[in-house]
Amino acid sequence: MAYRYPHSLNELIRYLSKLPGIGPKSAQRLAFFLLNVTEEDAVGLADAIVTARKTLHHCPRCGNFTDDDICNICRDLRRDTGLICVVEQARDIAAMERAGCFEGHYHVLGGAISPLDGVGPEQLKLASLFSRLQGGEVHEVVLATNPTVEGEATALYLAKKIRPLGITVSRLAHGLPVGGDLEYADEATLSLALAGRKPL
Amino acid sequence: MAYRYPHSLNELIRYLSKLPGIGPKSAQRLAFFLLNVTEEDAVGLADAIVTARKTLHHCPRCGNFTDDDICNICRDLRRDTGLICVVEQARDIAAMERAGCFEGHYHVLGGAISPLDGVGPEQLKLASLFSRLQGGEVHEVVLATNPTVEGEATALYLAKKIRPLGITVSRLAHGLPVGGDLEYADEATLSLALAGRKPL
Repeated sequence: MAYRYPHSLNELIRYLSKLPGIGPKSAQRLAFFLLNVTEEDAVGLADAIVTARKTLHHCPRCGNFTDDDICNICRDLRRDTGLICVVEQARDIAAMERAGCFEGHYHVLGGAISPLDGVGPEQLKLASLFSRLQGGEVHEVVLATNPTVEGEATALYLAKKIRPLGITVSRLAHGLPVGGDLEYADEATLSLALAGRKPL
Repeated sequence: MAYRYPHSLNELIRYLSKLPGIGPKSAQRLAFFLLNVTEEDAVGLADAIVTARKTLHHCPRCGNFTDDDICNICRDLRRDTGLICVVEQARDIAAMERAGCFEGHYHVLGGAISPLDGVGPEQLKLASLFSRLQGGEVHEVVLATNPTVEGEATALYLAKKIRPLGITVSRLAHGLPVGGDLEYADEATLSLALAGRKPL
């Protein structure tokens, strides 16, 4: 007979193993960790999950996570309202902002076109994007969907739809990651890096 | 100015990054995951943490985690009460039970002797161990503390204390892990595997 954990320990392990990148062994390790830490750390985590779920929602303008009416990026008057960066997920905004080189606004699609997963253009937040582009204020849209088949397809689809509005459409450059090693670069990245080479 | 997440998202990331093996990047990933999954999965995890902390306690006999008066191993009448396996942590019991080859009872020390961390014999659950050994029913104690400096020191200390009681004291064997590779075995393990070699 296999050893069975007490029910509540089993439940904790079951929920933890639903987290991405957490297998059954890691889930066990995390569960025992949570049983051994201070009350504040364990219950604090539980509260943080519930509070985050309750207070955070998508910004009605751009789709970023916010605990306010409008997110702090949309509210920031120093940002260029003529420049919109289109990303797949709200978490991608944080990545762009960490790079700290984009001064415009964002628009979260909520995914990428993926016929295999049943995600077509109608599943993405496109209506709100195009209503933002109607005003005539926006002069450039930067397509920052992921460099995957789905992300590329989404970028091509959007470019075709946006260009007729007389708005410049651009895409993040492909190439070698900084600090990367030529030897380990895949063929697709290398050929795009070569095609996009710049005079020195 | 660095991008700042909303407060409740920041808090969630802060608590997640306290988990073992979860760095800042993984914590962000987990936080966004928890914001995107169903209410049941996210709040279920929060509830599971709180419930596990509330219902689970250490078995007063052996120190295993249980939601009952006595843990299911101590309660199991088919087990050999004359055989006690001493482990450092409650989670080690699960590892032994998964192996499924031990039919006795357990005793959790709650750690190992480690002067550098300020853990001496008086910090371990030794009083309850020796009171279990007094009855005359126990004929063997298997020392299954970790194969680390602290675990070995604890095993030696316990062996010296238990042997005068006329009880057999044994230690889990050292050697090559099954499926391991001789080439990658460290010198200490190899020399112990050689010293412990068996006639075929």
